[in-house]
Amino acid sequence: MMNYSQGKGELKNWVVSEVEFSPDTLGKSESIMYLGNGYMGLRSTTEEPYIKDKRNLLISGTFNRAEENEVTELPNLADVTRFDIRIDGERFSLEFGETKNYQRQLNLKTAELTRYFDWTSPRGKELRFHFRRFVSLDNLHLIGMKMMVESLTDPVRISLDSGIDAQMSNSGSQHFLEGERRIFDKQFIQLVQTTNESKIDVVINTTHKITVNDEERIKVPEMNMDRRKVWLTYDFSLQPTDKLEIEKITTVFTSRDKEFEKAEYTIQQLRDHSLQDLQDSSGKGYDTLFQSHLETWQNKIWEAYNFEINSDDDFDQLALRFSLYHLTIMTPAHDDRMGIAAKALSGEGYKGHSFWDTELFILPFFIYSNPKVAKSLLTYRYHGLVGARKKARENGYLGAMYPWEVAWPTDGEVTPVWGDIDIVTGNQTKIWSGFIEQHITADIAFAVYQYYNVTADQGFMDHYGYEIIFDTATFWASRLEWNEKKQKYHINDVIGPDEYKEHVDNNAFTNYMAYFNMKLAIRYYEKLTMENPMCLKELTKKLNLDKAYQHWQDKAGKIYLPEPREEDLVIPQDDTYLLLKEIDLAKYKNQEKVRGIYRDYNSEQINKLQVTKQADTLILFYLLEQTFLNDDERISEAVKRANFNYYEPKTLHDSSLSLATHAIVANDIGDIDLAYSLFKKSSEIDLGPLMNTSDDGVHAASIGGIWKSAIFGFAGIRLVDGRLRINPRIPKHWHHMKFTIHWQAQPVTISITKSTLSVKVENKESITFEVFGEIHECDDFIEIPFGLTE
Amino acid sequence: MMNYSQGKGELKNWVVSEVEFSPDTLGKSESIMYLGNGYMGLRSTTEEPYIKDKRNLLISGTFNRAEENEVTELPNLADVTRFDIRIDGERFSLEFGETKNYQRQLNLKTAELTRYFDWTSPRGKELRFHFRRFVSLDNLHLIGMKMMVESLTDPVRISLDSGIDAQMSNSGSQHFLEGERRIFDKQFIQLVQTTNESKIDVVINTTHKITVNDEERIKVPEMNMDRRKVWLTYDFSLQPTDKLEIEKITTVFTSRDKEFEKAEYTIQQLRDHSLQDLQDSSGKGYDTLFQSHLETWQNKIWEAYNFEINSDDDFDQLALRFSLYHLTIMTPAHDDRMGIAAKALSGEGYKGHSFWDTELFILPFFIYSNPKVAKSLLTYRYHGLVGARKKARENGYLGAMYPWEVAWPTDGEVTPVWGDIDIVTGNQTKIWSGFIEQHITADIAFAVYQYYNVTADQGFMDHYGYEIIFDTATFWASRLEWNEKKQKYHINDVIGPDEYKEHVDNNAFTNYMAYFNMKLAIRYYEKLTMENPMCLKELTKKLNLDKAYQHWQDKAGKIYLPEPREEDLVIPQDDTYLLLKEIDLAKYKNQEKVRGIYRDYNSEQINKLQVTKQADTLILFYLLEQTFLNDDERISEAVKRANFNYYEPKTLHDSSLSLATHAIVANDIGDIDLAYSLFKKSSEIDLGPLMNTSDDGVHAASIGGIWKSAIFGFAGIRLVDGRLRINPRIPKHWHHMKFTIHWQAQPVTISITKSTLSVKVENKESITFEVFGEIHECDDFIEIPFGLTE
Repeated sequence: MMNYSQGKGELKNWVVSEVEFSPDTLGKSESIMYLGNGYMGLRSTTEEPYIKDKRNLLISGTFNRAEENEVTELPNLADVTRFDIRIDGERFSLEFGETKNYQRQLNLKTAELTRYFDWTSPRGKELRFHFRRFVSLDNLHLIGMKMMVESLTDPVRISLDSGIDAQMSNSGSQHFLEGERRIFDKQFIQLVQTTNESKIDVVINTTHKITVNDEERIKVPEMNMDRRKVWLTYDFSLQPTDKLEIEKITTVFTSRDKEFEKAEYTIQQLRDHSLQDLQDSSGKGYDTLFQSHLETWQNKIWEAYNFEINSDDDFDQLALRFSLYHLTIMTPAHDDRMGIAAKALSGEGYKGHSFWDTELFILPFFIYSNPKVAKSLLTYRYHGLVGARKKARENGYLGAMYPWEVAWPTDGEVTPVWGDIDIVTGNQTKIWSGFIEQHITADIAFAVYQYYNVTADQGFMDHYGYEIIFDTATFWASRLEWNEKKQKYHINDVIGPDEYKEHVDNNAFTNYMAYFNMKLAIRYYEKLTMENPMCLKELTKKLNLDKAYQHWQDKAGKIYLPEPREEDLVIPQDDTYLLLKEIDLAKYKNQEKVRGIYRDYNSEQINKLQVTKQADTLILFYLLEQTFLNDDERISEAVKRANFNYYEPKTLHDSSLSLATHAIVANDIGDIDLAYSLFKKSSEIDLGPLMNTSDDGVHAASIGGIWKSAIFGFAGIRLVDGRLRINPRIPKHWHHMKFTIHWQAQPVTISITKSTLSVKVENKESITFEVFGEIHECDDFIEIPFGLTE
Repeated sequence: MMNYSQGKGELKNWVVSEVEFSPDTLGKSESIMYLGNGYMGLRSTTEEPYIKDKRNLLISGTFNRAEENEVTELPNLADVTRFDIRIDGERFSLEFGETKNYQRQLNLKTAELTRYFDWTSPRGKELRFHFRRFVSLDNLHLIGMKMMVESLTDPVRISLDSGIDAQMSNSGSQHFLEGERRIFDKQFIQLVQTTNESKIDVVINTTHKITVNDEERIKVPEMNMDRRKVWLTYDFSLQPTDKLEIEKITTVFTSRDKEFEKAEYTIQQLRDHSLQDLQDSSGKGYDTLFQSHLETWQNKIWEAYNFEINSDDDFDQLALRFSLYHLTIMTPAHDDRMGIAAKALSGEGYKGHSFWDTELFILPFFIYSNPKVAKSLLTYRYHGLVGARKKARENGYLGAMYPWEVAWPTDGEVTPVWGDIDIVTGNQTKIWSGFIEQHITADIAFAVYQYYNVTADQGFMDHYGYEIIFDTATFWASRLEWNEKKQKYHINDVIGPDEYKEHVDNNAFTNYMAYFNMKLAIRYYEKLTMENPMCLKELTKKLNLDKAYQHWQDKAGKIYLPEPREEDLVIPQDDTYLLLKEIDLAKYKNQEKVRGIYRDYNSEQINKLQVTKQADTLILFYLLEQTFLNDDERISEAVKRANFNYYEPKTLHDSSLSLATHAIVANDIGDIDLAYSLFKKSSEIDLGPLMNTSDDGVHAASIGGIWKSAIFGFAGIRLVDGRLRINPRIPKHWHHMKFTIHWQAQPVTISITKSTLSVKVENKESITFEVFGEIHECDDFIEIPFGLTE
């Protein structure tokens, strides 16, 4: 079982810890305690192997298509974490013998994983083990490991196999050619491999440093090689109270690294550079390397984000820190050619692909907290225009049609075509998202809009932003289908965010977002005419905007936008949803595993029921309140409430994205208790007691959702019509929350209690914002009392 | 520990059994107890998984090159043997709880693997398990498995995951494209995969039948899919004394199967045919299928070979049966396009490639015991002429230069280029065999000669045999190098059977065998001129024999053939061996792992020492005594003895081929005790107490060597100058041995005691043979007394 509020004194609410070892549910801790730095992610698999463990080392951007009939994915690199330990000749495992004082901890503050226990072998030898591990935020290429073993009572013989194991695969799919294995000076191991399709070279170097009772032990180990594997075998005889320490320092470099993306690149440069880096680093030793890493975390992350919650339930503060930790390590902030993977860098799930998850659930954090990283993520989408235009062409449309799943940005659509088994036919089901889940194109335009309005980064717009918004609008203009009878433009045969409804017509979310996208293009086109005709001229040349603008103008106003029904204010999710059969969903609402309904119904059958993965219209309310729709009329609270009450009971939250949105909308309609319980549930997707939810990796979007629920939900922060709105409604259990956001290039620190909101403008440049309908201006510090009843 | 003489009554000396479970040394039993039928080999990995287990299912002939920088190999197919068993929700494993009455047995007579034990779970539930498994010799495509579980005391919940797992690889190299997975009628699972380079389709089908207390339980299991994996989950609640039985029947077919090698082949035919076969077979049930399998073993194998040994040490009879069992299951008797792999079908070692091992160590068994299979194996070499000619051309020679390693026969050389780590430089060492280990070409010519003389199969010679002998002789004629000074033809820069000496000149074995090959061609050419000019004419047209015959004639007599030194009768193994430094080899002679010397010296250093992997000249004595050399003068016993005494102490027997040869030669020189001890050591390569020797698979050649030591050694059977010789010298501990050989198309049953030899000619056609220098003729039965001292 996980114990979340572990840690006392300085460490209070900074530690995720496991107090009992459970060999049948290893995936949970492996994923949620994973280490990383945006360059790489290292699953927190234990040193000693277990049947159900899963070792993953993933590097952002190293996409490869293993075989002709697969899609590209992040390859699982060679493993350096496994230690085969023998005690007096017998395999060491926590499944045997007796374990006491067990504790495994991820310290979020220091981003270090530690494991500690006393173990009595089946033969009665008592030993004390202590493992430490980090993936450096200071040197993005570095993994540090340390094992300390003490014999407590008897003389004992310890032997250890450790090296580099490239027999790893992605659940059987092998991405790498068999590589070269070398051992320099009987101590520096180097493995060089190349991906079999994308031809990316990967070099892993590793070395060990051994001390016994703090004295360095120079010992030539046995050198071993097997296919795709090279390792050293060490043997030690320890006397009682002898302390053995083994440091293992590893570096990883690839030819995809920006510094090697040059014409004169040779694999020998990569070999030499990476080995040199290993030699320099290992010379410093674990403790020194760790200190640099820790300082980087303190300065770049914790001090910058400055997030505090004072809650009766310690879990809330921990959940927020968990969210910030993971948002940091999942994001390739170092390279704007790379995006965020749906399972972060914690597992093979979703193949390292990026979805709308980034723009809707993660990007908002960076837009408000670290605009430089937000810019990098949107620049990734700018590079992706190449792939999006390709996809549009392939599908017979104009402009930029963003892929539902994207890997290397210029590659275009990479959604796999075949999914899980259909329980009725016994066949694999076809995945339609890559063909007809099209709202992502408007979602990205929305993200650009949000970034621009929050950061006021005009340079980004001039270079990248306008081009994205214009070319996506052009896609929609070509995508619309004229309905002669209704005299409206329809969008037929799509999947909306509620993926349980395939091949629907006029999905409300899609139609509204397409409308938004085109209106935004018109607005910015007209703005550029006035403000920057030079820029417009260049874009016109590139994108044929004269003609495009005409199309937007002709069509946008005629898009069919489903209105709330008169009788109950419910907006039809699509043309048919409200006509479908309703069934009792109690069984699935309380499920332990997602997609439980697929064990009883197949896709075709689910398509004919009023059952929803996540409620489309609620996402719409959360997004589009912030902008212009229906002549700038905001959506009324009555409509929100009606739709919430209609759709939520039909929603299985089978998308990890669902709960956070519902939490925000519940807060918007004033139901703070429900919002708080949804926030908790959302936090528990990874951090909760269910042990199998994170096996394939953490849920990046839901981790972004923790932050979103707190900031857009409880703190009530929102961009509305280009202005900052702050409508705080903090939960009963919370006494205080404080955080820093960036508003138009200025840090603004916001502090909220049950009755007051204080705003501190760090650079003393005046800002305007709305609080519960009232407009405030501030250029230094303001405290605003408001009357929330307890 | 293995216990070899297990089995009482009828089963005495028929059973290889393991009486204690050892999770750290699983490879031994997995390999030596593996099941197969020549079509496929299934490693005997336990149903429940362990960290160190290795699952292998290999199909003869399905070669594939996984990646551009690897060599072709037999791919490891999807696994069907793994059962993930949970008892009351907890993983079942013999590493926990308490195990009693454990026994795992391979019954050689029935070719069935069984496992039996009582197990008390960590929570105190007592259960009785019984597993059975066979790979059918009746239906070559079929695997039968059965698990019986009885709850002895308490109600217990058992659940089981079982299906098809294609996440398997060859130590990380993946040969298969991600395939299709289906479940028909919620019970018949089908997985279709294609190799990624050779494009061979493989279809695996499996199904389960469940009974509780002998009543069929129709239960719809949970259906699951993961990447490259499809499985069912069953759940059962057992009351005390309830008996649960699960049968799992599997069929495997591939597009390489002869019946599908046709122009109109479609993968759908393979799907349909294999599923139908599964449905038909599973309908019969395990017991019926097993009965057919058992009868086939009885009729086709045990009665046909009729091999008996009466020894004081039961191990000897068991070792012989072990040899016959493995010779049967390793050999693709069903398809003459396929050869025997060096590690049989029991593991990934040597990649399923065939070496000279077949011709020198295994083929003799089939030549004397089952000529039809011997013909198939030599026909494989005939198909291999395509590859051998390709290799000759690539190396600048004429004729047929057989590959050191061969896979699909027409592909030519497939020896990998890089091997283990060099402990001095840290680099991988280059493997030279594929370039310069050339004696294999003459070894194959010798095998054809032996087959022809023993079987008198003239049809084979006319169609295949002459062509092999002529074109290999042509290779040698083009390979010889004229030494002006010595006025002799030399063969420089080769590796002989003693692979510890690379790049040597005039390796005695190679030179003599090349000489033999050319002389044989001359003899047969001249014979054909007289006896079958039509055949010669056709071959002349194809092989340009007029010119070739001239070359043979010109060169054969001028080949340098190293003679015994006058002072000590030692034949120099090559031009430099006798000049090299000698070192103390005690440490390596007593090693537990082979190649121990490589941990102290690298190849370059070993090349400069008088240390030998296997003694070349001794193999020469064993082979060439049988034929014409030096004007038909037989090699004297004094020369044999001198060379044995010189080379054996320098020989590490680091080739598993080595011991059997030494046993035979020891017997030839009259040292029966030494011969017996070498026979035993040879048997113990796989069947002995060292637990890691067979991890990568059994040693096919050494298994052939067990039979060879008995027949060519103790029974003294030998082909000498085209005539059968029988010089029996059975070991002290043996009272009697009896077996049937085929001599020139007639079964001949030979029975030997310490003082008599009896020969029974089954078809009553007269044969002539030599016994200790005397010639006998017999057309029915003869008993010959001879005077061996006890």
